[in-house]
Amino acid sequence: MEGLRQALIEKIDNLNKPKGSLGRLEELALQIGLIQGTLSPKLCNPFHLLIGADHGIEREGVSVSPREVTWQQMINFTRGGGGVNMFCRQHGFQLHIIDVGVDYDLSQYSSIINKKVRPHGSGNFLIEPAMSQREMEECLNIGCELTENCHKEGCNILSIGEMGIGNTSPSSLWMHLLLDIPLEQCVGAGAGLNPQGISHKLEVLRKCLDRLALPPTPSTAINPTFVMQQLGGLEMVTAVGAMLRATELGMIILVDGFIMSACALMAIRLRPEVKNNTIFCHVGDESGHKRMLDAMGVKPLLNLGLRLGEGTGALCAYPIVESAVRMINEMNNFDNANITKYF
Amino acid sequence: MEGLRQALIEKIDNLNKPKGSLGRLEELALQIGLIQGTLSPKLCNPFHLLIGADHGIEREGVSVSPREVTWQQMINFTRGGGGVNMFCRQHGFQLHIIDVGVDYDLSQYSSIINKKVRPHGSGNFLIEPAMSQREMEECLNIGCELTENCHKEGCNILSIGEMGIGNTSPSSLWMHLLLDIPLEQCVGAGAGLNPQGISHKLEVLRKCLDRLALPPTPSTAINPTFVMQQLGGLEMVTAVGAMLRATELGMIILVDGFIMSACALMAIRLRPEVKNNTIFCHVGDESGHKRMLDAMGVKPLLNLGLRLGEGTGALCAYPIVESAVRMINEMNNFDNANITKYF
Repeated sequence: MEGLRQALIEKIDNLNKPKGSLGRLEELALQIGLIQGTLSPKLCNPFHLLIGADHGIEREGVSVSPREVTWQQMINFTRGGGGVNMFCRQHGFQLHIIDVGVDYDLSQYSSIINKKVRPHGSGNFLIEPAMSQREMEECLNIGCELTENCHKEGCNILSIGEMGIGNTSPSSLWMHLLLDIPLEQCVGAGAGLNPQGISHKLEVLRKCLDRLALPPTPSTAINPTFVMQQLGGLEMVTAVGAMLRATELGMIILVDGFIMSACALMAIRLRPEVKNNTIFCHVGDESGHKRMLDAMGVKPLLNLGLRLGEGTGALCAYPIVESAVRMINEMNNFDNANITKYF
Repeated sequence: MEGLRQALIEKIDNLNKPKGSLGRLEELALQIGLIQGTLSPKLCNPFHLLIGADHGIEREGVSVSPREVTWQQMINFTRGGGGVNMFCRQHGFQLHIIDVGVDYDLSQYSSIINKKVRPHGSGNFLIEPAMSQREMEECLNIGCELTENCHKEGCNILSIGEMGIGNTSPSSLWMHLLLDIPLEQCVGAGAGLNPQGISHKLEVLRKCLDRLALPPTPSTAINPTFVMQQLGGLEMVTAVGAMLRATELGMIILVDGFIMSACALMAIRLRPEVKNNTIFCHVGDESGHKRMLDAMGVKPLLNLGLRLGEGTGALCAYPIVESAVRMINEMNNFDNANITKYF
């Protein structure tokens, strides 16, 4: 591994450009070379998983959008008219739309993969666990299987997005509990709450934590599966499962905004090597997202003010990842380009 | 114009997403709709102009790379092995490589467009003008003609890059004189000077200004064509000409890093409407670049630490521009998507 790293650095430094002058592309090329164990990495058959579920906590008025938007958007995605659809078309991603707990019968839509774990979405974790232990394991297994299906079709780069009104709430709680960051620094506007709405959301989330009556332990002592089960979103746990399996299979994972970053945080907590395979693509306007990424020691590629979700931030960054791979494969080096090697 | 602006804003706001949730893409879609005067903009036949020239000031040791790198890289671009080549291939740009003053006989390379204005590059503006009035006008005309040739081939989006060892020096002087920013805040490391090198460069550039003995006038009173002629780079003046004509022809201009931003600054000073047609694509690590863009009141799309030049930062941002155009054309709106319009 150390030998490969050195060889990759040498190859990148010897391309005909001032050392380091392609910035983040050089870092990406190194990361992808290490993931694939080669000096000549390739991106094959990219897939996008769009995983949808509803959230019991939405009943507490923590979101500006009503619950019905989840199923309406799921149907919209089947018609090709969502933000995620146009990005998938642009960058050649195959789109898999998966229902793990949308509060609506979507079975008539053949392009939605029906994997409902709970028909009406997660439990309201203000008053009950989000899901049972068995349901959590089912979500992890579904995620694992979704990744395997892409891998079988020759995919080695996977992007993951979500649709679930209310899912910034569990994301904030995961961030707070896994990173020891004060809750008020983990709670933001979601898709557009006003300051009163944010205060209310914070108050609700504090009460959710009160219900669990956790002993005062450092974040490192917290059981991550307990957090997922009690405070999860079904689509989020599924995404965690997908990330864990993608890492085992040596795939690149493109991570979107606040919610998918919280899932990556959880997956890394369960298996630290997930971090090696993950590219953090976008930092959105959701308060707390930048703080989360800083605490994780990772730098996102883009900041374009996207806050749509669906994985749009991850897809938007794909051409940059592709440029990095082209750079290491296609650029001449100083040996064959007959150029004075400047510093 | 105001009617179109309102209609574009309405169309963008009515796409099925929370208002503003596609961030910079929404701003880009509005800008491009206004440039093209339509609610359904298109990107057609993108071209990249890569304009090369040498710089007399390079003789004063202001650059870490030797002069010969200019012609060596120009030849390398003809072979497809440069950074700019791989970006052009990736994003479907036709590449035009133009020599307006490279200090080397490149006439045997049929894919380099020979437009030499001065065979050995610009004059050393420490001791003499960079070019004559006639040569400056010739460069502007060449730029104009280059743009027209692209436009004739159906191009409506033009990216411009440069190759010219030493060209951060004239760029710093243009920034200083046109924006009234203290010279020391305009001078950076170029392709990799150390702190002593930067001090030396600053001292040399101060002496260049001393030679001109400009009266203490505010930047708004300075004659921009005098600045170009005395302190120009041939490739830079050509780029200014290309930008001026592109604006007249209603084309989108993609601007790269520090040097091309200085050219956009000059072009906007000559014709303020150039700003409407320009997309600032990348802010690099060159000290002063962010300051320049801030002073111009523009926000770059990317910050990926690129400092290669050649227009790579502009090309790298192209897919984001394309996403903006797809967004406004391809996304469903609330009327036809049957989705609850959330806020």
